[in-house]
Amino acid sequence: MRILIDAMGGDHAPEAIVRGAIDAAAEFGAQIVLVGRGEAILKSLSALGLDTLPKGVEVANADDVVDMCDDPATVIRTRPDSSMVVGLRMLAEGAGDAFISAGSTGALLSAATLIVKRVKGVRRAALCPEIPTKNGSALLIDCGANAECTPEFLAQFAVLGSIYAQKVQGKERPRVALLNIGAEESKGGALQKEAFSLLRQADDLGVIRFVGNMEARDVFQDTVDVVVADGFSGNVLLKTIEGTASFMSGMLKELFLRSALTKLAAVICRGGIRAFKSKLDYREVGGTMLLGISKPVVKAHGSSDARAIRSAVRQAMEAVNGGMADELRTRIQALSQISPTKDK
Amino acid sequence: MRILIDAMGGDHAPEAIVRGAIDAAAEFGAQIVLVGRGEAILKSLSALGLDTLPKGVEVANADDVVDMCDDPATVIRTRPDSSMVVGLRMLAEGAGDAFISAGSTGALLSAATLIVKRVKGVRRAALCPEIPTKNGSALLIDCGANAECTPEFLAQFAVLGSIYAQKVQGKERPRVALLNIGAEESKGGALQKEAFSLLRQADDLGVIRFVGNMEARDVFQDTVDVVVADGFSGNVLLKTIEGTASFMSGMLKELFLRSALTKLAAVICRGGIRAFKSKLDYREVGGTMLLGISKPVVKAHGSSDARAIRSAVRQAMEAVNGGMADELRTRIQALSQISPTKDK
Repeated sequence: MRILIDAMGGDHAPEAIVRGAIDAAAEFGAQIVLVGRGEAILKSLSALGLDTLPKGVEVANADDVVDMCDDPATVIRTRPDSSMVVGLRMLAEGAGDAFISAGSTGALLSAATLIVKRVKGVRRAALCPEIPTKNGSALLIDCGANAECTPEFLAQFAVLGSIYAQKVQGKERPRVALLNIGAEESKGGALQKEAFSLLRQADDLGVIRFVGNMEARDVFQDTVDVVVADGFSGNVLLKTIEGTASFMSGMLKELFLRSALTKLAAVICRGGIRAFKSKLDYREVGGTMLLGISKPVVKAHGSSDARAIRSAVRQAMEAVNGGMADELRTRIQALSQISPTKDK
Repeated sequence: MRILIDAMGGDHAPEAIVRGAIDAAAEFGAQIVLVGRGEAILKSLSALGLDTLPKGVEVANADDVVDMCDDPATVIRTRPDSSMVVGLRMLAEGAGDAFISAGSTGALLSAATLIVKRVKGVRRAALCPEIPTKNGSALLIDCGANAECTPEFLAQFAVLGSIYAQKVQGKERPRVALLNIGAEESKGGALQKEAFSLLRQADDLGVIRFVGNMEARDVFQDTVDVVVADGFSGNVLLKTIEGTASFMSGMLKELFLRSALTKLAAVICRGGIRAFKSKLDYREVGGTMLLGISKPVVKAHGSSDARAIRSAVRQAMEAVNGGMADELRTRIQALSQISPTKDK
């Protein structure tokens, strides 16, 4: 298996990317292709004390880099030689099995859609992060790729998330819920009411397992495996978790820094505090899958360090092993019986 | 000043309501009118060891109670003798200066709109909770009263929140931000893009002080005083904070229960832990203002205890003292220059 990695994307590129890739190659036995400026990659290697490429790591040269300010919609035209575009072309042409980038989310979404293409019948690719819960995790789909959604998009997201949960996470009959502002069927706006009806029909057809509406506060309760949302409210949910977790971690730190005695308490609890902080830490989770694209594409966090990149490689490998595309085509086809596909 | 309280609304009514009302009367010197079933209220009093009404507390009889299952839109017709409807009638007729209820949010919103009426020109009343931040708080408007919003509604919410922040919270030039999925002007769906333009125009006119888009993760940073959102995503934000805070508090508890030593650490840190837990505790904040109604109406949390009711009374008194209605009429009028009012 060959995992293509955008060596130039993210706040800590290329150093952190190169280091994470090397770790992943050694640990998971993956064949890694670092796509980017050869010279910069070699410099990162020598900073790590390496004068040759380690076993399992290759370099594919790409002279340009996508900038965060670039218009996402046009990068494949304006930055044809960028590490992101070159890497995605290699993926489309079969020179790798999955692609990882910590670069611009919008550019990755747009370029992956144009170069690698969506699975037939899929209207929109969607970002699908894993949210850590009490005893496991829940997938959130979409979390920002599509600010504006139709009920049909949401029904398709349910299928995308369900298949990922089954094929990659090994959950047998993943429970799908619709993010809403109350449990009752009548809750939400027109989008949620229509999506609710489509999701129930999809459940009747056996395409997904729909368990109803879910309020945002219940996302940690392990009652649901896939949370379906439009990209706007999904993004609000995800970033509120991030903000609240960081706010509370900060308070916890203050709590322990109050006095010599509380500092002692911190020493006693240090194992627990580490676990507490890492629970909602993106570096453990890896990246966010971009589902609906015909081959696995992983969006790593912009501030990814080597550990985050290593986790993203593991995630990409799991996605390749899961092999979602065929199942996805079949079920999207089944879904179209209740949700007539129109050209949009 | 006379504060009307729905004695029968909420999970712990009437006991917790009566107790909170008595505490508030004693502490804040408010004149309280408990609206509800006289017999049940007297029983709650005697459970507190009181055989007469304490100074500053009156009872207004109402034989019926709004049920959580009642259709919110029709309670004023189906439950004319309920504590909520009777209390709101008293408010409309001038028998009190503010009304507090821990009963059904939908029913309160609908009945307050129909009985007490919105301020002239205000399209929709909105729920406006205070979110505790690092060094203060931020208002979130709307958080669920209006699942479906127009850009004009959002611009009006900005005015409602700004005036509350000024008149009641004493913030001189409150900073208003639009909840969005990125900082750039081009972010979000059509609703956000159009709202952004209206908010900027309102800033140009001096009606509000607009500081741009804000991502959900930044709500705790004290950079903003009023966060404007449609009721759906505002509700997602609020409930995600609630869920994440409760999830993390649970983890913290586990952390301290691990061993005899960590239990000792918990004793050392108990003051800090209390502060940590109470930071995101609704009982400290009081209730959620229902802004846009011509007189102050406070929605207390459904699971309000006596402390929460006491806080809600303080909040209602502050709102009465603030006297928003005149200023609101003036500024909504000014806003209509850029956002032509249509009958909807």
